[in-house]
Amino acid sequence: MAGLHEECGVFGIWSESNLQASHSIYYGLLALQHRGQEAAGIAVCNTFGEKGNVSYYKNLGLVSEVFDELTLNKNEGNIGIGHVRYSTTGDCNIENTQPLVYNYVKGTLALVHNGNIVNTAALKQELYDEGTVFRATTDSEVVACLIAKLRAKSSSIEEAVKKAATKLIGGYALLIMSPRKIVAVRDPWGLKPLCLGKRGNDYFFASENCAFNAVGAEFIRDIKPGEIVTISKKGLTSDFTFEADKQAHCIFEYIYFARLDSKIDGISVYKSRFDGGRALARSFPVEADLVTGVPESGITAAYGYSFEAKIPFALAFHKNSYIGRSFIKPTQEEREAAVHMKLNVLEDVVRDKRIVLIDDSIVRGTTIKNLITMLRNAGAKEIHVRISSPPFLYPCYYGTDVPDNTELIANNYSTESIRKMIGADSLGYMKLEDIGSLVGDLPVCKACFDGNYPTPVEQN
Amino acid sequence: MAGLHEECGVFGIWSESNLQASHSIYYGLLALQHRGQEAAGIAVCNTFGEKGNVSYYKNLGLVSEVFDELTLNKNEGNIGIGHVRYSTTGDCNIENTQPLVYNYVKGTLALVHNGNIVNTAALKQELYDEGTVFRATTDSEVVACLIAKLRAKSSSIEEAVKKAATKLIGGYALLIMSPRKIVAVRDPWGLKPLCLGKRGNDYFFASENCAFNAVGAEFIRDIKPGEIVTISKKGLTSDFTFEADKQAHCIFEYIYFARLDSKIDGISVYKSRFDGGRALARSFPVEADLVTGVPESGITAAYGYSFEAKIPFALAFHKNSYIGRSFIKPTQEEREAAVHMKLNVLEDVVRDKRIVLIDDSIVRGTTIKNLITMLRNAGAKEIHVRISSPPFLYPCYYGTDVPDNTELIANNYSTESIRKMIGADSLGYMKLEDIGSLVGDLPVCKACFDGNYPTPVEQN
Amino acid sequence: MAGLHEECGVFGIWSESNLQASHSIYYGLLALQHRGQEAAGIAVCNTFGEKGNVSYYKNLGLVSEVFDELTLNKNEGNIGIGHVRYSTTGDCNIENTQPLVYNYVKGTLALVHNGNIVNTAALKQELYDEGTVFRATTDSEVVACLIAKLRAKSSSIEEAVKKAATKLIGGYALLIMSPRKIVAVRDPWGLKPLCLGKRGNDYFFASENCAFNAVGAEFIRDIKPGEIVTISKKGLTSDFTFEADKQAHCIFEYIYFARLDSKIDGISVYKSRFDGGRALARSFPVEADLVTGVPESGITAAYGYSFEAKIPFALAFHKNSYIGRSFIKPTQEEREAAVHMKLNVLEDVVRDKRIVLIDDSIVRGTTIKNLITMLRNAGAKEIHVRISSPPFLYPCYYGTDVPDNTELIANNYSTESIRKMIGADSLGYMKLEDIGSLVGDLPVCKACFDGNYPTPVEQN
Amino acid sequence: MAGLHEECGVFGIWSESNLQASHSIYYGLLALQHRGQEAAGIAVCNTFGEKGNVSYYKNLGLVSEVFDELTLNKNEGNIGIGHVRYSTTGDCNIENTQPLVYNYVKGTLALVHNGNIVNTAALKQELYDEGTVFRATTDSEVVACLIAKLRAKSSSIEEAVKKAATKLIGGYALLIMSPRKIVAVRDPWGLKPLCLGKRGNDYFFASENCAFNAVGAEFIRDIKPGEIVTISKKGLTSDFTFEADKQAHCIFEYIYFARLDSKIDGISVYKSRFDGGRALARSFPVEADLVTGVPESGITAAYGYSFEAKIPFALAFHKNSYIGRSFIKPTQEEREAAVHMKLNVLEDVVRDKRIVLIDDSIVRGTTIKNLITMLRNAGAKEIHVRISSPPFLYPCYYGTDVPDNTELIANNYSTESIRKMIGADSLGYMKLEDIGSLVGDLPVCKACFDGNYPTPVEQN
Repeated sequence: MAGLHEECGVFGIWSESNLQASHSIYYGLLALQHRGQEAAGIAVCNTFGEKGNVSYYKNLGLVSEVFDELTLNKNEGNIGIGHVRYSTTGDCNIENTQPLVYNYVKGTLALVHNGNIVNTAALKQELYDEGTVFRATTDSEVVACLIAKLRAKSSSIEEAVKKAATKLIGGYALLIMSPRKIVAVRDPWGLKPLCLGKRGNDYFFASENCAFNAVGAEFIRDIKPGEIVTISKKGLTSDFTFEADKQAHCIFEYIYFARLDSKIDGISVYKSRFDGGRALARSFPVEADLVTGVPESGITAAYGYSFEAKIPFALAFHKNSYIGRSFIKPTQEEREAAVHMKLNVLEDVVRDKRIVLIDDSIVRGTTIKNLITMLRNAGAKEIHVRISSPPFLYPCYYGTDVPDNTELIANNYSTESIRKMIGADSLGYMKLEDIGSLVGDLPVCKACFDGNYPTPVEQN
Repeated sequence: MAGLHEECGVFGIWSESNLQASHSIYYGLLALQHRGQEAAGIAVCNTFGEKGNVSYYKNLGLVSEVFDELTLNKNEGNIGIGHVRYSTTGDCNIENTQPLVYNYVKGTLALVHNGNIVNTAALKQELYDEGTVFRATTDSEVVACLIAKLRAKSSSIEEAVKKAATKLIGGYALLIMSPRKIVAVRDPWGLKPLCLGKRGNDYFFASENCAFNAVGAEFIRDIKPGEIVTISKKGLTSDFTFEADKQAHCIFEYIYFARLDSKIDGISVYKSRFDGGRALARSFPVEADLVTGVPESGITAAYGYSFEAKIPFALAFHKNSYIGRSFIKPTQEEREAAVHMKLNVLEDVVRDKRIVLIDDSIVRGTTIKNLITMLRNAGAKEIHVRISSPPFLYPCYYGTDVPDNTELIANNYSTESIRKMIGADSLGYMKLEDIGSLVGDLPVCKACFDGNYPTPVEQN
Repeated sequence: MAGLHEECGVFGIWSESNLQASHSIYYGLLALQHRGQEAAGIAVCNTFGEKGNVSYYKNLGLVSEVFDELTLNKNEGNIGIGHVRYSTTGDCNIENTQPLVYNYVKGTLALVHNGNIVNTAALKQELYDEGTVFRATTDSEVVACLIAKLRAKSSSIEEAVKKAATKLIGGYALLIMSPRKIVAVRDPWGLKPLCLGKRGNDYFFASENCAFNAVGAEFIRDIKPGEIVTISKKGLTSDFTFEADKQAHCIFEYIYFARLDSKIDGISVYKSRFDGGRALARSFPVEADLVTGVPESGITAAYGYSFEAKIPFALAFHKNSYIGRSFIKPTQEEREAAVHMKLNVLEDVVRDKRIVLIDDSIVRGTTIKNLITMLRNAGAKEIHVRISSPPFLYPCYYGTDVPDNTELIANNYSTESIRKMIGADSLGYMKLEDIGSLVGDLPVCKACFDGNYPTPVEQN
Repeated sequence: MAGLHEECGVFGIWSESNLQASHSIYYGLLALQHRGQEAAGIAVCNTFGEKGNVSYYKNLGLVSEVFDELTLNKNEGNIGIGHVRYSTTGDCNIENTQPLVYNYVKGTLALVHNGNIVNTAALKQELYDEGTVFRATTDSEVVACLIAKLRAKSSSIEEAVKKAATKLIGGYALLIMSPRKIVAVRDPWGLKPLCLGKRGNDYFFASENCAFNAVGAEFIRDIKPGEIVTISKKGLTSDFTFEADKQAHCIFEYIYFARLDSKIDGISVYKSRFDGGRALARSFPVEADLVTGVPESGITAAYGYSFEAKIPFALAFHKNSYIGRSFIKPTQEEREAAVHMKLNVLEDVVRDKRIVLIDDSIVRGTTIKNLITMLRNAGAKEIHVRISSPPFLYPCYYGTDVPDNTELIANNYSTESIRKMIGADSLGYMKLEDIGSLVGDLPVCKACFDGNYPTPVEQN
């Protein structure tokens, strides 16, 4: 999928004894790198120190670029939180990187956040009017300042978090470190994922359980929507902010964001995508010689389609994995030549073949159109496009960075028009009623497809 | 495949008019990055300048790390050569990066080399005795100095290259730029690949034709074993160094080195690997629930095995593509936890399943053993390992960086012993007589499997 | 002087038309670099933009290391403030660099600060109790948050600054940019310097007037103690915070901090040091062959001593100006050898000579002792040390980074004992009553010599 | 002096036991940094290793930028050579940095060079014709290849050096390391300086003896013109290349290049400059209120003038030592403002004064003209310029980077015209016959003043 991005991943550790928390967080963040590649950061605390000695490091770049061994070793502590970021709100600059770390009345407050708060503007104005200053331009800083403010009138950090949570509308998974505690909270709709793991006596939090494998921890359970978990020397306690009238887990975690080997709210991501491909095959069957997928986003659904349709899977595109972020974009003149740079057709595979081509979504339509042209040039006879999600019709307010409505091709054209524009022989989008094939009975937010938002939505 | 590396890729361009040769070489090298990730370099010449103004830039790192737009633009020319390097002989340092660029009696000589010269030591001693100095520690510099020396007594650079080539034993694909000409030469056994492409009036050379797509050029033909191609303002001419008594194309280009979407000496790499998987299925059939491959090296053969055996393919491992070179290695203590860092099992896929696991080779056996353990821990019922190449028994003298005999597990243990050591339920290596399933009638060097070297082999 | 450091320099510009404010600030900061070498930063605002578009850049390092042309050009504006920092309070990290830049109720607030606030702890606790968070660990951030808080209840930024100033005890020169105004304020005791310059219609602020020459501006006048100057589109206005009962300009600006070519509160720095040397010659005359100074801190006073005593000046030490911050310190073993690295004796100059050696102060005594040993080893016959300031006996609370009392040699030993310890033939400190020779009638703070602090001093 | 540059400094160490040669060379090069600021490099050899294990590191930049502790420690050896470079011939690029290090018939050859070879072109052509290739564009590489070539037909490295030296015309100080020996050679005219030092059993070579102090070594003696010194396990031996008919030590070492605290061929650099100032005072006396010098190049001569003329010295300009190489040059518009950036007038010192202003030379005349304007603007009444060297009239072929004749103001105008052009009230250059006041009877090359070159001079 080109043009869609997830904003963040969070990871946390509470250890009773191991002072190398930063190392565990490093490996955890590496496992969550797919959730954000613009910045990374780690804050740790040595709870044995007299005052709870917090240190942190963060910067723009990939986890492996931001951290080296020296930096990890310098930041010594037994508890800590980490963050990988893709910017949805707030520019890509150093002030907006996380963990956000503040000195406040009770010592040091550190916070990481995945998600998007819908009522940020109103909350921010309230704080402004009381004389608050902000350094960053993110909703995350508003949350942090709100918690700090409420802490002054609360008996504990978890109480302050609870008070703050009742004011927040939107999707969020938060980890807060206040020097000797870690508090985790998940929005009451369950929009954003957050789960709990364990290794010996050490506890872990992560956006996805694939990160637990990276540190040798075991998955315990998902944090429940609206749940606040607090870990301190006294152990783990759990509380609930408030009950939302409905749960609405983000469907895009399954379709696109999450790692294949994760399991979120009981559903395996790989299986969900594979089954989505099977559903597509049932709803939009076609006679063909081979099934293929757009690497990497369409491959798993293609396996499922192939399985269900009993048409062999074959790789039609080679993806150059060395085209990194620092890659020099071709000029307009070089463009045509360079279309084969990232993805190149395996000509012997596709020549004279009838092909089912799977991708997980169409945003603007330019990418799929290019790929179809490449297949035709390589001699493909028929190209039947199958998309493993319904058409994208509504904006997301919870942290998924979707282009403007005006750029969404499905918003402006019928499926038949799109088929013609991209040059496919047939085109099928997953049916809205087939969403269940992905996630079973799990209540999901699929507002981007049907416009039914689980929360009020601020207009600004 | 862990532990095997290719040494280099070369790319060249001759344009009559376009002064942005460095840009084309950049994209060409990006497409060849899989052939070497330690260093990259580009040398170009503006043949319109009075003296043939050569400039170059090279450094340790990936192509996208070494070059930025400024550097490309500063190195302006209409012809040029480029190189990506993995060090087989010579340390990984800046002196050993290529293109090698020298001032010599006729102006500037630039050279890039893929391969390994067997009789380097003898050639070097000759040059030493005449007072020659070397800066690098590579066989490539010996070749360059030899050509420069012979040029003083020859009427043209191509004549000097021819004289030099008659002295070289081993595998080589060379591009030589001497200011206003580009000379390409491929060893007479055809050990190393080299091919010719065209875009309008511009000619291109590349180790693999996948690089032509990256610059919008068309594949013309492979350079023939022993062929010397010279391009100058007068056009393209072809000559032959000498006829080898036999051709011996490196089998490992098909098994491991080359890109899936390349075609070398008429054989599609993807098809070769796919068919290898099919042959494996015929020779070593087994009842199983799913076929899977070790990412990325075993995936294509797994598709072939699945196709032939009519057992569904499924992804059993997720590969974290963000584990780069700068990744901080886990300490001994963290090791066990970190085994899941690079590859993580998709537990829902493998639980209670009988699995065929394909990889392209076993070098030391440690990687496959770890993967089998991971599968067992995730609940796999049976694991049948199939290797899409025969056992590795002999060293390679032509540029493939194979570990010492003593480290090669196949050299020291029987297949049954290896099966036990790695913990598989069954183990099958491709049969030597099935090599034909990969490459048909193409005469190949498979000395690493059978010890039959196509050239004399120096002992030192 | 080894061991004493100034904390900061500030520079500001208000231009009606020139959008290259960042360039002027860059040159101004270069001229003030001697006041702080740990970090530098610039914030500018384009007041023609609809919202007052503030941008900024800051980092650890020298001005010439932090900024390049690209960065200056990217930060476009017609007004702006800049800062060079040496850390007295707060660690040397990126959070503590200045300008501090915040979003607040009225847009963007930027602030730079030279000095030290004595009652920081009390002010901070007040803010903490209201739920304020801090990112930095500096008194400067407390000042900024205080101003922002007060702004919410004030009719203008200058009114908020005035309210804040009445609460601040200590030395400060502040520049505040709030998007379309620049407000400058100097503490009511005049402890820290701040002056006003002009170039055409553009106004400038700087810690020292030497910075005006660097941008072609003319010195207008010193900002008066307690004065608040506000510049906006409506022009320049002046107000006073409150009258202090006494003025107390920091004597160390003349003795050590300020640049030779600056003039502060009417007194030329060069002349002050030169006259200090003359006073020393009158108070502690001695027969000698030559007068010399410790480079650079003692050279000017040595010129004065030489002039008054009619003993020729000669250079006895060569200073290696290439020993930068990144210089690798010699190991203990290399230490003895390396004592000549920074300063080396000109042996032919000092052999068999009776020498008057001038420095501006003695902190721990180790440096002067080493120099005397070097002179003796080079054959000097007599060494008479003269110090152009009285002995250091009391800590500074206003921003001068003096070592602990316990480390101050003058606090622990008599002059005669010190003479013996350093190995001098005679030793004379400037007499307290000779301070007037430096600054005439100007009321100065010389609390570091006599313990008479002009303000209450917080105990913590 | 603006516009004149020295090309290089060399440093070497032979230790019997200390494996930290790289550390000593580092400190030695720091002391010689004034001789070249564009690049630095160190090559060392561990002679206890079986083969004489040579390693090296070099790069563009200052010594303190090029080396860090890690790099020094990684390059372990007991003998070694180092270089700081300013490029006179050859561009400023990495290939031209030194030590030049080659593998050759006898192992590894490393070489550092200060000076310039007049007959490079002829020597290079000879080597070209025999098929030699060059990577760099410097005369130093020609010398190195010549030595390597001759080594093949010689019984020892020192014999090869001697044979090479008889072919070299020009100024040179060379250190050659061939793995277990260090050979030092100085040109037979003594144009370039080179001296020998000792610390315990360790020997040192350096361009100037000030470097010995930096490593705690003692100065033994200057290497004699034409002398070849070889140090090996067997001790130190000395030989002579050939006798030149005359010695001709470069006068500019005393006037400008060398450090104040060095002593070259028996003459103290500080004393030489001081005495030059005295001679100027005798030859061009004037009534004035103060004597001052252009920092730093004119200060020492100003001390001498002041001493002889009995007119007090005073500092008229403050030099900003933070204006480094990375300083962003002011634009044309900012130029006028920025003239005070590097040097700023101390207005109180010069107002209404009659001033003698000393500098060591005038190249193009622009700098001195600016300074005079600044002094006038600050209120100086009279300005009498005195130059402590004769007018520059002829090019230097031995390594001093003088601008083209056409740019040398003295070549194109009379002294009276120059006086008018720069706006001085009077102007006096040191008389040619007063050169003796600088260096006594020492035979010097002063061809830049009188055109009498000590060697044949190649025309190309």
